[in-house]
Amino acid sequence: MLTKKELIDFCEEARENYLAHISIDCVVFGFHEGLMKVLLLEAKNSSDWYLPGGFLFKNEPIEMAANRILKERTGLAEIFLQQFHVFGDPERSKEHFDMYKDMLPAEENWFMDRFLTIGYYALVDFCETNPTPDTFATACTWRDLNDLPVLKLDHSLILKTALDAMRLQLNYQPIGYNLMPKEFTMPELQKLYETILDKKLDRRNFQRRMLGFGILNRMEQPRKGGAHKAPYLYSFDLENYDAALKEGFKGGW
Amino acid sequence: MLTKKELIDFCEEARENYLAHISIDCVVFGFHEGLMKVLLLEAKNSSDWYLPGGFLFKNEPIEMAANRILKERTGLAEIFLQQFHVFGDPERSKEHFDMYKDMLPAEENWFMDRFLTIGYYALVDFCETNPTPDTFATACTWRDLNDLPVLKLDHSLILKTALDAMRLQLNYQPIGYNLMPKEFTMPELQKLYETILDKKLDRRNFQRRMLGFGILNRMEQPRKGGAHKAPYLYSFDLENYDAALKEGFKGGW
Repeated sequence: MLTKKELIDFCEEARENYLAHISIDCVVFGFHEGLMKVLLLEAKNSSDWYLPGGFLFKNEPIEMAANRILKERTGLAEIFLQQFHVFGDPERSKEHFDMYKDMLPAEENWFMDRFLTIGYYALVDFCETNPTPDTFATACTWRDLNDLPVLKLDHSLILKTALDAMRLQLNYQPIGYNLMPKEFTMPELQKLYETILDKKLDRRNFQRRMLGFGILNRMEQPRKGGAHKAPYLYSFDLENYDAALKEGFKGGW
Repeated sequence: MLTKKELIDFCEEARENYLAHISIDCVVFGFHEGLMKVLLLEAKNSSDWYLPGGFLFKNEPIEMAANRILKERTGLAEIFLQQFHVFGDPERSKEHFDMYKDMLPAEENWFMDRFLTIGYYALVDFCETNPTPDTFATACTWRDLNDLPVLKLDHSLILKTALDAMRLQLNYQPIGYNLMPKEFTMPELQKLYETILDKKLDRRNFQRRMLGFGILNRMEQPRKGGAHKAPYLYSFDLENYDAALKEGFKGGW
């Protein structure tokens, strides 16, 4: 929790610089070799956990704000964040309201306001990141999706909604360009999908469907070495991959 | 355009009742027998066209606000509106800013503010609606998607983004329950998809894919009468349809 002095200073600056009533929260999923994690902040002076979030400057485009906030709060830069939902329950900020209500008069307290929050999500290789907390947090950490701490406010709902949005997205858009090596086998790609979906997939159906999307090139030479039959190697066809990101899969209608 | 008196009154009420910086715009697509339209408002005292939109009450949940605004502005009630995107370009309300800047001091003028707008869309049978303009509009009309007037602000972008979102949605969620008769033929359902996508689809692929989703029941008796071979009739399996609305198609991963 902020001290009274910190709270007063923050509120003054916030009212001067930020757009009222609106915040942004980022759900950054991390994948590496069959593990799925999510990036969380532990608040200073308490053991409360939050998604990395913040406020928009009065004249800042929202995509720019999402990227700035993620960078300031976690150190992560150049992340492809996708907007997925606005959370607008009038009671959603009540915990913050209660937390600060005795420290400042309501009209001076930035956190007394109702905030709608715009959710953004991303999926990155967690081994290629270096999470760094800002001054409001003691920790900025990758936490296992299957072993999450309790999250404050409605951040559990935001996380769950982001996960559902990403899983639905697997049905109409490609994923994985920033997560796979340049060349990969079909089982390696299947492992990514299985990890995101948290379930086993049928090997032959996966291969048939994935090839049907037309976003993979098969290398002429299979991978060398190993005890078993050498598997074919694939790479993403970037032109078709980008087109499918914009327009959805060809395998669609 | 509003008169000065109307503008003053509106701004006073707006500041008292509405949440600053946030609006909602609704893109209601209408389908009937191979035609696609969109519901637009023509502003009073000008020939400017807009999507039906409005503002949130200070303590109103956003889904409730979207439904109230659509009802107030167009008369349409009990429409299934889906949130699809927030539009947050800092310059997006500039036309309104310019329109009203000479009529009121900036600090009193509600329309001087920056507004982020939350987009909602719906697809209805336009023959079952009775659009009715509110006091700010002279007309509330179904307009052909292929013959649209110029829209004010960024409403063309909002409309285009809604159409893209709906087309993508066809790849992972069912559509049409409120648009088809209780029993329908496969070509009739295909016509709906072709109209939304604005392109012809292959008859056999369409049938194979649609049946694969597991959301249709085939009636035992084909449709009676007609010169050609009687076509099979289908109806939606509501349990599977609802499950697919929530979780995406089984034909997915």
